[in-house]
Amino acid sequence: MSIITSRERLLQAAVEAFAEKGFTATTTRDIATRAGMSPAAVYVHHDTKESLLFTVSVEGHQAALAVIRTAAAIEGDHVARLRQMVREFSTWHAVNSRVGRIVQYEFDALTPEHRAEIADYRRQIERVMRDVLSAGVADGAFDVVDVPGTARAILSLSIDLVRWFSPRASTSAGDIAQLHAELAVRMTTPRSPS
Amino acid sequence: MSIITSRERLLQAAVEAFAEKGFTATTTRDIATRAGMSPAAVYVHHDTKESLLFTVSVEGHQAALAVIRTAAAIEGDHVARLRQMVREFSTWHAVNSRVGRIVQYEFDALTPEHRAEIADYRRQIERVMRDVLSAGVADGAFDVVDVPGTARAILSLSIDLVRWFSPRASTSAGDIAQLHAELAVRMTTPRSPS
Repeated sequence: MSIITSRERLLQAAVEAFAEKGFTATTTRDIATRAGMSPAAVYVHHDTKESLLFTVSVEGHQAALAVIRTAAAIEGDHVARLRQMVREFSTWHAVNSRVGRIVQYEFDALTPEHRAEIADYRRQIERVMRDVLSAGVADGAFDVVDVPGTARAILSLSIDLVRWFSPRASTSAGDIAQLHAELAVRMTTPRSPS
Repeated sequence: MSIITSRERLLQAAVEAFAEKGFTATTTRDIATRAGMSPAAVYVHHDTKESLLFTVSVEGHQAALAVIRTAAAIEGDHVARLRQMVREFSTWHAVNSRVGRIVQYEFDALTPEHRAEIADYRRQIERVMRDVLSAGVADGAFDVVDVPGTARAILSLSIDLVRWFSPRASTSAGDIAQLHAELAVRMTTPRSPS
């Protein structure tokens, strides 16, 4: 229990420090201070600052992957499924825009092995979207010529939120997510009713 | 003539250094060495490393704004105009993905005054897209309920390219730009022919 708590406190402190100062300018001591721990205690969990960034990146990608997979598993037709996926994926990126920015902007600070592991999560997320589009094309629910390109474009709507979304803006995460879901349906469904 | 050349060489060296090491880890000496100049010569043009980042950001945003403005000024109907804008804006982001990444990922390293100036360029780019959508809605060529949200979503397709586009990938910048243009048309035109 206390191990889980200090681990979470440490990751939270890392996110705060990376968001405020950037990965390069952050020291292990900064993170320790924010977490109310000694630098030695930090090393118990993470031997390098990069390993903290990697953990933040893995947990972020795992959470985003879980969100889109859960949405893809709902009962209902292809259009309802796509709408749910985009709505949930955009909401997640708006709500977690700070973690999302770190994970995207500091990607190059990861070791090559860690970058490869994160790239694999990204491919899994794209695969979920491609599979749903392909199934809908096979059933005639979707009219999509370039499935991989369209899958990526739909995901871009959500992912680019981390660059510009602000919780202080006039438009809520829910409204933006709803708009993205409708735009994704427009991008994929036949122009004339089939 | 020689002033322009050394200025461009300097900016090019800054882009290379920032792309490779990140803004924080780059020193003025790194940039000078890459440009084949003395650190003192760098200070003639830029008194701080931040001022180099700002110049790269301003020039990048000015170029992207010019590209979308030029496209928005073509003869033709609303759909042709939108298609041209998205095609050109996506092509620009794919071809300039390295500069685009620096400008996006290091945005927080700018001074507050410089961030405000860059944010203004972003608003101008959004305004060009919003104006074209609004004109099309007024004429019945477009069916868009949320013009600002949809304008942003269309721009996201292009901007998110800097995160994932690789000149070594199997899909060309031209093909991706063409797909984005078609998706933007789908996002904005009425579902049944008007």
